[in-house]
Amino acid sequence: MSESETIDIVVVGAGIIGVATAYYLQKNNPDKRILLLDRYLAAGQANTAMSAAAVRNMFASSTNQLLTDSTVKFIEHVQEELGFELLFEKCGYLWLLSEFQFNNESVQMWMKRMEKSGIHYKVYNKQQLKEMMPGLNVDFTGSEEAELMNLKEVDYGLFGGDCGVLDPTRYVEFYLDEFKKMSSVKPRFGVNVKSLILEANPKLDLPGEPFVWQDKNVTGVKTDKGEIRAECVVLATGAWANELLDPIGMDSKTKCKKRQLFVVHGEDNEGLKEILNAKGFNELGMCPFVILPSAGVYFRPQKQEHGFWIGCGDKLGRAYKYVQTDEDLIPESAYYENSMFPVLSTYFPAFASTRPINSWAGGYCYSPDAIPLVYYDCGVLVVNGASGSGIMKADAMGRIADALYRGEPETELFGGKKIPSETLTIKKRNVEVESVVI
Amino acid sequence: MSESETIDIVVVGAGIIGVATAYYLQKNNPDKRILLLDRYLAAGQANTAMSAAAVRNMFASSTNQLLTDSTVKFIEHVQEELGFELLFEKCGYLWLLSEFQFNNESVQMWMKRMEKSGIHYKVYNKQQLKEMMPGLNVDFTGSEEAELMNLKEVDYGLFGGDCGVLDPTRYVEFYLDEFKKMSSVKPRFGVNVKSLILEANPKLDLPGEPFVWQDKNVTGVKTDKGEIRAECVVLATGAWANELLDPIGMDSKTKCKKRQLFVVHGEDNEGLKEILNAKGFNELGMCPFVILPSAGVYFRPQKQEHGFWIGCGDKLGRAYKYVQTDEDLIPESAYYENSMFPVLSTYFPAFASTRPINSWAGGYCYSPDAIPLVYYDCGVLVVNGASGSGIMKADAMGRIADALYRGEPETELFGGKKIPSETLTIKKRNVEVESVVI
Repeated sequence: MSESETIDIVVVGAGIIGVATAYYLQKNNPDKRILLLDRYLAAGQANTAMSAAAVRNMFASSTNQLLTDSTVKFIEHVQEELGFELLFEKCGYLWLLSEFQFNNESVQMWMKRMEKSGIHYKVYNKQQLKEMMPGLNVDFTGSEEAELMNLKEVDYGLFGGDCGVLDPTRYVEFYLDEFKKMSSVKPRFGVNVKSLILEANPKLDLPGEPFVWQDKNVTGVKTDKGEIRAECVVLATGAWANELLDPIGMDSKTKCKKRQLFVVHGEDNEGLKEILNAKGFNELGMCPFVILPSAGVYFRPQKQEHGFWIGCGDKLGRAYKYVQTDEDLIPESAYYENSMFPVLSTYFPAFASTRPINSWAGGYCYSPDAIPLVYYDCGVLVVNGASGSGIMKADAMGRIADALYRGEPETELFGGKKIPSETLTIKKRNVEVESVVI
Repeated sequence: MSESETIDIVVVGAGIIGVATAYYLQKNNPDKRILLLDRYLAAGQANTAMSAAAVRNMFASSTNQLLTDSTVKFIEHVQEELGFELLFEKCGYLWLLSEFQFNNESVQMWMKRMEKSGIHYKVYNKQQLKEMMPGLNVDFTGSEEAELMNLKEVDYGLFGGDCGVLDPTRYVEFYLDEFKKMSSVKPRFGVNVKSLILEANPKLDLPGEPFVWQDKNVTGVKTDKGEIRAECVVLATGAWANELLDPIGMDSKTKCKKRQLFVVHGEDNEGLKEILNAKGFNELGMCPFVILPSAGVYFRPQKQEHGFWIGCGDKLGRAYKYVQTDEDLIPESAYYENSMFPVLSTYFPAFASTRPINSWAGGYCYSPDAIPLVYYDCGVLVVNGASGSGIMKADAMGRIADALYRGEPETELFGGKKIPSETLTIKKRNVEVESVVI
């Protein structure tokens, strides 16, 4: 790489959002030279790879419903119609809820909004759940542990059959392969973007530019391997956005939090096998993605491994970070043991006799309303803030980013539904706050 | 101070928001022992003292209109009826606007919403402005400098006569004096709060608490002079909120930016004196607070000093900060010279022959919608995010914070208008995004 080179568009970040955006930009702007960059040595190796890699269209805000429903349908299309194996399994999502939770205003609103948007869901009662998941403990009468842990009993199950799990690395590969087929510029890995270049437009070549009275534009990026000038800089940097945007005076509006996943195998455990092979939820005869009523604990089935990935959406007590640090990549075994395990094994006693054989951790990038941010200002196209659900929003976000780049007022999502392209901007934001964040 | 002491309420931060909140809490909860803390050696010495100390009710969002209109009326009440001198001068605010700006949708909406809320304003045309402010340059025809700097011509003036300027230190003293009269606990200064204490409730005395399944509460603060336990911790920390809230997993939703003020005296300058003594805007026969159409430059009159404080609401190009640093307290003379001065002296040529005799800088604490954040969760009462207009919102914010503490669903503001107490919370936020941020 030379000291300073020029390209049309530079896409910073080759996670799922970055590759989807690069793909749609290249597809709809075939003459543009688009360079995809990532600090890691391959695409999708940062927080995309650390994700629970489950996809759902069951959101409470109509915006997230639109973004995820179209993306999940696109994922199905890639696997079923284009024949690109994503290991996408439509196992469904199952929220286990207490009577009180189920009747809560926010859950009722969530269901109403899903009906309005044509998102399919089912409600199971306690008896049905007991039959479908014999390993589930729905009655804590007399359990001191459950009382001590504030565990809510299971009265209802809210189930979405169009949701599922997939392999995020393969999904990244799909976009990356398609992008590379079209692009004349080879993606570069191991390149660390240090800062955005903000310049006066026009430049007067005076010391101290840009001044407050000058128009300003981002005209490129400084990397550890030299400067790259571009007409448009795409930021798909997730949890690292603050590091690049704040110094030039653009507020990323995001913060991150560490999240951890622990893998438990069920091969030698009859109880876990029974949970894994739960019948009646889906055509695959497998366990859905399950969210417990208490403490934010959830698990997803992993059929190939005959096991589960167990996570926890911890709220108070888990620090928000300005920028993700290396420490956020280190899972804490004591956290599984003391915080997640007691909850999990009370609801599902079959987990009591096993321990994780693997674990990892990564960063979650929150926006203030848990709705993504996609905006194009002063030369920077920000595609960020997916709030823990980037994989299931990536296709829609990539299309919207490309539409903003091309100045298209409306974006057509997969399946034909349309969304005003400025919906996710900061200046013309028009969204409901998302309440169903895991 | 002992190693660990216990109090009912600890208020962290004795800026204008902190003292107003402490005052209303003590007034309406007379039996509570309330301790006011500040890291500086006196109240109101941090960003309150660095402010331009002007107050306006001319906002575009109905929420900010309500907060500021009641606070400005309270300020008038304190000075006129309670006889406490705040050096409050109702000089008015004058936005100078180009034809294009004036006709912009957002300005039209702003005016409409002010009419709806009963906020008084006047519109002056170019001819009227020329007569009232002979020193104002409204016509840049043929000026290469003006063209180079993208300066918009002045076509209209939007004027609010109920706005003005005051001495923020005196306003802090008003609340502090009244608080001290009621409080049994002496405020402490020079105490640096290092962190919030988050604990399980109930505590089980197990290592590693609090776990994810435990209820949690903030039960006090760790300071450089020992621990203080309290039933309620009030955070009125402005630009330092992230440092305390993020580590326990509460998102402050704020960021800060450096702002600077430069003082120019007009005693020996006929042109500046003429501006300072502009007639026709107010009963005082003095210049209003003036916002120029371009580059964010503004100035406020300072009658006692026969001069002006000149500031600039710089946007792109001025870094957002996670937490304010000492560097944010250092004004940059080159910034005045190269960025503000050329703009100011083109609109008002009388400024061309003088230079600042004093300057200071401080931090501006932005919320995502430029509306304050007031919420009471898990033992922490956050009163923050005034977005550069804390002085003009302090009274309303203090009353709302106290109402939340007492569990009152509605807050009565000064003048009798009411606001649902949860309006400014994160969870039940119900506000329009503010567009008129200086």
